[in-house]
Amino acid sequence: MSKCRPCVITLLTDFGYQDAYVGIIKGVITGINPVVKIIDICHNVSPQNILNGAYLLYTSYKYFPAGTIHVAIVDPGVGSKRDIVCVKTRNYLFVVPNNGILSFVVKEEKPEYIIRITNNKYFLPSISNTFHGRDIFAPVAAYLSLEIKLRQLGKKINQLELLDILAVKAKNNEQLEGNIIYVDRFGNLITNITKQHIKSLEINYKYLKILIGKKKIVGMSKNYADVNKGKPLALFGSTGFLEISISHGNAQKYFKVNKIIEEDKDLIFFCEK
Amino acid sequence: MSKCRPCVITLLTDFGYQDAYVGIIKGVITGINPVVKIIDICHNVSPQNILNGAYLLYTSYKYFPAGTIHVAIVDPGVGSKRDIVCVKTRNYLFVVPNNGILSFVVKEEKPEYIIRITNNKYFLPSISNTFHGRDIFAPVAAYLSLEIKLRQLGKKINQLELLDILAVKAKNNEQLEGNIIYVDRFGNLITNITKQHIKSLEINYKYLKILIGKKKIVGMSKNYADVNKGKPLALFGSTGFLEISISHGNAQKYFKVNKIIEEDKDLIFFCEK
Amino acid sequence: MSKCRPCVITLLTDFGYQDAYVGIIKGVITGINPVVKIIDICHNVSPQNILNGAYLLYTSYKYFPAGTIHVAIVDPGVGSKRDIVCVKTRNYLFVVPNNGILSFVVKEEKPEYIIRITNNKYFLPSISNTFHGRDIFAPVAAYLSLEIKLRQLGKKINQLELLDILAVKAKNNEQLEGNIIYVDRFGNLITNITKQHIKSLEINYKYLKILIGKKKIVGMSKNYADVNKGKPLALFGSTGFLEISISHGNAQKYFKVNKIIEEDKDLIFFCEK
Repeated sequence: MSKCRPCVITLLTDFGYQDAYVGIIKGVITGINPVVKIIDICHNVSPQNILNGAYLLYTSYKYFPAGTIHVAIVDPGVGSKRDIVCVKTRNYLFVVPNNGILSFVVKEEKPEYIIRITNNKYFLPSISNTFHGRDIFAPVAAYLSLEIKLRQLGKKINQLELLDILAVKAKNNEQLEGNIIYVDRFGNLITNITKQHIKSLEINYKYLKILIGKKKIVGMSKNYADVNKGKPLALFGSTGFLEISISHGNAQKYFKVNKIIEEDKDLIFFCEK
Repeated sequence: MSKCRPCVITLLTDFGYQDAYVGIIKGVITGINPVVKIIDICHNVSPQNILNGAYLLYTSYKYFPAGTIHVAIVDPGVGSKRDIVCVKTRNYLFVVPNNGILSFVVKEEKPEYIIRITNNKYFLPSISNTFHGRDIFAPVAAYLSLEIKLRQLGKKINQLELLDILAVKAKNNEQLEGNIIYVDRFGNLITNITKQHIKSLEINYKYLKILIGKKKIVGMSKNYADVNKGKPLALFGSTGFLEISISHGNAQKYFKVNKIIEEDKDLIFFCEK
Repeated sequence: MSKCRPCVITLLTDFGYQDAYVGIIKGVITGINPVVKIIDICHNVSPQNILNGAYLLYTSYKYFPAGTIHVAIVDPGVGSKRDIVCVKTRNYLFVVPNNGILSFVVKEEKPEYIIRITNNKYFLPSISNTFHGRDIFAPVAAYLSLEIKLRQLGKKINQLELLDILAVKAKNNEQLEGNIIYVDRFGNLITNITKQHIKSLEINYKYLKILIGKKKIVGMSKNYADVNKGKPLALFGSTGFLEISISHGNAQKYFKVNKIIEEDKDLIFFCEK
């Protein structure tokens, strides 16, 4: 962590914007380190949906300056036996429940140390059973921004819990079977298919067939305005994944993808030669 | 207020996230004090619901560093005769409409001075009748963060308006009658019952009966994972009040508490031996 | 831009609060200028609704300190041929798509320079087709806050695209025909009628008749509490436009204005002698 720039702490949670939970966390952090910069990544992770949080963290963490402390709290196990960990990668520190929320991130940034956080010297004096964001995550992150040693937080462990994210299935170099892993505000459907996957099909983008339910899209687009208003299209989105969109419209509504994407999701689609 | 740390101004309003109102307030503050730190507590207070704002302020104000200036604007009387006041407690300053929004706070932190804010030297040059957040609250808070004297704002008054918050009714050391005072994003039902109230029943937590509508919960839980998925539970939440929750679920939906909690609310429930 | 105060960058977008888009933008800015102050104006502009964004920018930009860099991204043409421009006015810099989002602002603050932004030295190394907020707007704004010269961004152009905002129609000094241009969180209906327009009718405010659908309001109010609870009223709101409101209520629901206000809107109303 460079000393010449104010340290950054980011917050990603499922606490929403309806209650005071996020404000309280910022109060605790500011009380410990009044000059740290706190930046919200998002607080509308679908409640208790770890996959959702893992995806959002993956799309954003790398755009922050090296040394940033990322706090991500989607924590259905709060108050039970699950661990809270501090994970150091080459460029960042993560303070998270050990429940799979780093599943995407660790594909890009290997953990160098994983510490199970147990030292209550860095917690609030009184720990509730339901709001560890306030009582543990916030003060730990704030003390980390004051550059305490990681080892002061607890013992090193070797393994992180990871989500069993449904992998892309390939069939004879002819077909890929993928899943929707996220739906954004504009109704864009984000899949788990990357350019690498499509390359394996050895086909020119413009002949690629994408089947979603009973609808078919032929060819990849470059941008949302590439097809006529109201028409579906597929493109590689800003996160590097194949996305299904409607030009000037909403693919979630068009394809009736109304439900929250869950781990055991059934929104299978295909890319074919 | 310590001089060595940048002062903090918090904002709690019912302005929502759909309009530019909150951004405008931050612009005004920043124009007067460019180094003050502005932290959002919440802007989704149910429109014009003073009880809702009073509860959220109570759960959060104390987690901010001493010297913080809390600005809370839930102000159905804007532009009419209601007063705007600056309240100094041992640790904080509050800039609020005098309408009861400090009702919970003053149970913990006694007001040391109450000033009725009238000195338009600290207002914007032109005062609208509908947006005192921009024209009065924001500049007053910003000037306070520059450490002007409280007395410069106006005359001292002796009394704050307080909400007539429904008290817990006790019956023969056998039964408590309480109310839901807040529903959070996760659908947790927060009541006005505290540990002190339950202590008065002189009963082991595990035999306590909690009646809500026609449903009964027996015993208090320690955390949300203490009962099976989908089952109701009662615990003392992070704010110190008894909460009704569903493990990995939503108590608001389970108990069909769909309406906004109002002052004249009818969501009575009971704790019994 | 004064050097003694930390520069401010504001963000106004239609990115919402559900995804990580806004957080990512703040990460990019902070990586380039770690001390710049980033303030959200609003991120709930109705998706791809330029009029909506133009109105919100107009109501807020002037409340920020001189030298503020306003970034406004409502950009249905992202990735297509539309330009991104930097516009310098007397007091501010604007970084926006050239699609009419400055239509209201330029009525108050004349553009002194308009630069078409093309110098990819100030972009992220890799430019997606769908998220120029991250790849172009954010780094350009951050470099501007480091006080690079405008001319380094690209060539000067002479004209801004402007929205064809429906003007107020006057009839024989007897009647004004106006439109609803915005509905705020409280359900207040904001019109395109100003005090200047009403002056042209040469009538005492208290005799003015306002017709909206089949309902009639007589006289202008000073504030929301000026009429009985639940009754409609008209007043000049905090933005300077005539607003239709319900005392302690919601005019959007009362008048059944359920739809998003579009440019080709049909919510005509009249002010008459």
